[in-house]
Amino acid sequence: MITRRALLDGVAAAGGARAAIATLAALGGLPATPAAAAAPSLPRDGRRVLVVGGGIAGLVAAYEMRRAGWEVRVLEAASKPGGRCMTLRAGDTVQEAGGPVQRVAWPEAPHLYLNPGPARIPHHHRGILGYCRALGVPLEVLVNENRAALVESPGGPVPLRRLQADMRGLVAELAVKGLGAGGLAMPVSEEDLARLRGALRFWGGLDAEARYRGTPRAGWAEGPGAGLDPPKPLGPLDPRALMVPEVWMAASFAEGIDYQATMLQPVGGMGRIAAGFARALGDAVVTGAEVVSLRRVEGGARVTWRGADGAMREEVAPRVLVALPAPVLASLDTDFSAERKAALAALRYAHACKLGFYAARRFWEEDAAIYGGISWTPRDALQVWYPSHGFHAEGGVLVGAYIFDGPSAQRFEAAAPEARGAAMAADGEGLHPGYAKAVSAPVSVAWGRMKRAGGAWAEWTRPQRASEYPLLRAPEGPYVFAGEYLSWLTGWQEGAVLSAWSALEDLQK
Amino acid sequence: MITRRALLDGVAAAGGARAAIATLAALGGLPATPAAAAAPSLPRDGRRVLVVGGGIAGLVAAYEMRRAGWEVRVLEAASKPGGRCMTLRAGDTVQEAGGPVQRVAWPEAPHLYLNPGPARIPHHHRGILGYCRALGVPLEVLVNENRAALVESPGGPVPLRRLQADMRGLVAELAVKGLGAGGLAMPVSEEDLARLRGALRFWGGLDAEARYRGTPRAGWAEGPGAGLDPPKPLGPLDPRALMVPEVWMAASFAEGIDYQATMLQPVGGMGRIAAGFARALGDAVVTGAEVVSLRRVEGGARVTWRGADGAMREEVAPRVLVALPAPVLASLDTDFSAERKAALAALRYAHACKLGFYAARRFWEEDAAIYGGISWTPRDALQVWYPSHGFHAEGGVLVGAYIFDGPSAQRFEAAAPEARGAAMAADGEGLHPGYAKAVSAPVSVAWGRMKRAGGAWAEWTRPQRASEYPLLRAPEGPYVFAGEYLSWLTGWQEGAVLSAWSALEDLQK
Repeated sequence: MITRRALLDGVAAAGGARAAIATLAALGGLPATPAAAAAPSLPRDGRRVLVVGGGIAGLVAAYEMRRAGWEVRVLEAASKPGGRCMTLRAGDTVQEAGGPVQRVAWPEAPHLYLNPGPARIPHHHRGILGYCRALGVPLEVLVNENRAALVESPGGPVPLRRLQADMRGLVAELAVKGLGAGGLAMPVSEEDLARLRGALRFWGGLDAEARYRGTPRAGWAEGPGAGLDPPKPLGPLDPRALMVPEVWMAASFAEGIDYQATMLQPVGGMGRIAAGFARALGDAVVTGAEVVSLRRVEGGARVTWRGADGAMREEVAPRVLVALPAPVLASLDTDFSAERKAALAALRYAHACKLGFYAARRFWEEDAAIYGGISWTPRDALQVWYPSHGFHAEGGVLVGAYIFDGPSAQRFEAAAPEARGAAMAADGEGLHPGYAKAVSAPVSVAWGRMKRAGGAWAEWTRPQRASEYPLLRAPEGPYVFAGEYLSWLTGWQEGAVLSAWSALEDLQK
Repeated sequence: MITRRALLDGVAAAGGARAAIATLAALGGLPATPAAAAAPSLPRDGRRVLVVGGGIAGLVAAYEMRRAGWEVRVLEAASKPGGRCMTLRAGDTVQEAGGPVQRVAWPEAPHLYLNPGPARIPHHHRGILGYCRALGVPLEVLVNENRAALVESPGGPVPLRRLQADMRGLVAELAVKGLGAGGLAMPVSEEDLARLRGALRFWGGLDAEARYRGTPRAGWAEGPGAGLDPPKPLGPLDPRALMVPEVWMAASFAEGIDYQATMLQPVGGMGRIAAGFARALGDAVVTGAEVVSLRRVEGGARVTWRGADGAMREEVAPRVLVALPAPVLASLDTDFSAERKAALAALRYAHACKLGFYAARRFWEEDAAIYGGISWTPRDALQVWYPSHGFHAEGGVLVGAYIFDGPSAQRFEAAAPEARGAAMAADGEGLHPGYAKAVSAPVSVAWGRMKRAGGAWAEWTRPQRASEYPLLRAPEGPYVFAGEYLSWLTGWQEGAVLSAWSALEDLQK
């Protein structure tokens, strides 16, 4: 078996006996595993709290307060809770401020959905994973890096495997030269130097002369078959092919702490988490309740809202947990301090955009053996995501664009849904010839135009973290605050969970 | 959002404008995607072929011959087809030559199983994936590299993320020095050199001085929360910690062409593939049929076998497709040429071993946030696999040892099942303190002792590939041959598929 042997032989050649290495006291102090995260335990003293905003932060806080027997209600403006954490399926609608109603026109099937907001859960986000477990939300693997996915390069799409292998080869070649030039800071013996040189060769797929001349890691020019001829690996790309920013981005992307394997997703879509909370909270969640004002009054704060029937209602509660996104809160009628109002208004949210396409044929699997993962393009679409579920099923939903922010997000946001669909379909042609004809029924969300979000996630500047962040996370009179923006994990559901837990601590003070 | 911003900022700093790079003609000639593999199309002329051996090679060949309307029977010695491709569940038994019967004593549940043979399907193994599709075998992602998995190092277990990040840092630091020492072979401008230096910094997580001083990629000393303090990344390990062979092996493992993401597995176990073939082939598969001799006779070859009822049977067929593993074939009573017999006997098979444990508590998920993937130990067990399915479910089956070959395999093979269980439980303590008490009900397979396999996969030497391989893959009189050993992808089901397709070509000659 070629690869296993090569692996073993390569390591043997590269490494020598492990006994030769001195005891590594530096390794000793590490805890192998983080302790599992947990919500603060609340006193069972029957308090009453009103929660404004039924996104993840509000739901988590309400869930914990309910567990402690507190009297809690969650006011959620939308027809179901979850906030930005949502899943779109056949028949669902999306409407941006000033935009037409988009209705999802895909067939109805369990595997056909789009998560326009958060779509993945890193394995170390223990808080949100704990709630998935508690709520019985089944999880499956989401493929974040797939070596068969493509990077659109000046000469055409190149599989990530080839870029990764060639980049490793280039870097390892340079590193061997750096080693020869006395690049190692620590004192090592000649023997250790030779060993490290061998290890670098193995690591980079270099030949005996420490040169990169291609490796099967990059893929096959002629694959291994059952004929007489051995397989032939691809030769190296022109190294200049590696000096394109998208290539480095695509190649280092899954190294980020929040992007590393294992990445998870709820079976059936991220909306299953909010649905789980809704099930657990029952009538504590009031949907269609659009809060219009918050005022301090005798005995706490008065929350006024318009109900699903259009009638105005109000409730006075001793404490109000305010779990709305900062841009929404900034434009709400409140009696917050002038400093808080200014800080809320100044906090910029990313204008991330996402678009989903239906494809009757899973051409990425059939034609390109792409099962999940992300392709990259320098065009506006930036990323194309392939579903990590429903393999070989009938049809699929692709993420046809995931744009974090910046000028391409501005262009996307300014366009009508139909124009976005056409533009993103055209962008996909750079990855898959024939793409524009293979995809249909676009549905898109430009978070900057979603009136109940006001953006995708908070983008703190360093000065804001020093001044406005402490201000915004502090309670004010009867008000306590929560949301992903009040954490160091903005843009992740885990940030909302941790912020909710922090707010629960505040509520006890 | 820290990471996304860092990603974008880092790339911007590292890369500059992509337009600066010359057009990369080198990229142009690549087909982005391989054409999907397909079986040779057979003439519908009603031939009759007897298949000896109901592993993947025999099943694939029979399936294609059936599709072409040929008359085909598959003789399989075991009680169900699949050969080394099998799945063990509650109540199943395993018996090695000279060993006791092992009965699987785990609870019965869909997620509780062990694939003692092949357990993963690379996404580019188009042949076997095509059959999964044709047979309606659902697939899901198998996590092959999980950055939360552990590597047992002299100072204790270290998460793979930390080793990977530090290794990248070390290599990138050296590469920057190599670049300074004129290490780049191609001629580049000063501007390009500066750009490459920046890109290397981004790639390795280096600071402004191109030094590695730790990065969040390695994990957090203090994780990001919702409090006032920003998160703190872990500092670098002593670089000598990286000079251990297991570390390089674990860190380069998933770069191999057959080990890269996306890796797949059939939902419910690898045995589902053979079960799918069995369903499709119906009564063409005769189980419990132990072939005892092959003889050339007038009109083809006579196959004699002992049936499930103990009675001897025989059948003469114009062509016989012999799809048994080489070691089994070497000891069978046949009239093959002396050269073939010698070559079959000389072909060494790997003595791979695998052991499964039941754990009532999924401690790897609960305590260590490990969802699928593989941990590495320098002890005999070598690898511990965590299930990529049934997350958060009740109980789980761990692969408690996967030993490819060599002295540790010899020790494992020589031991009784009970002693193996005790030894592998002790080995796991180096990864998870308390492991030995948390696992139970071991079931093990030492492939070198499985009489219907004679080993795990063929290990061709280079000289054998030149002489014996052509000899063994060539038909001989009425006999045509197939099996993973007759391919360049030994040890993979795909090798068996490709070999079966090659045999179908031979059958038409």
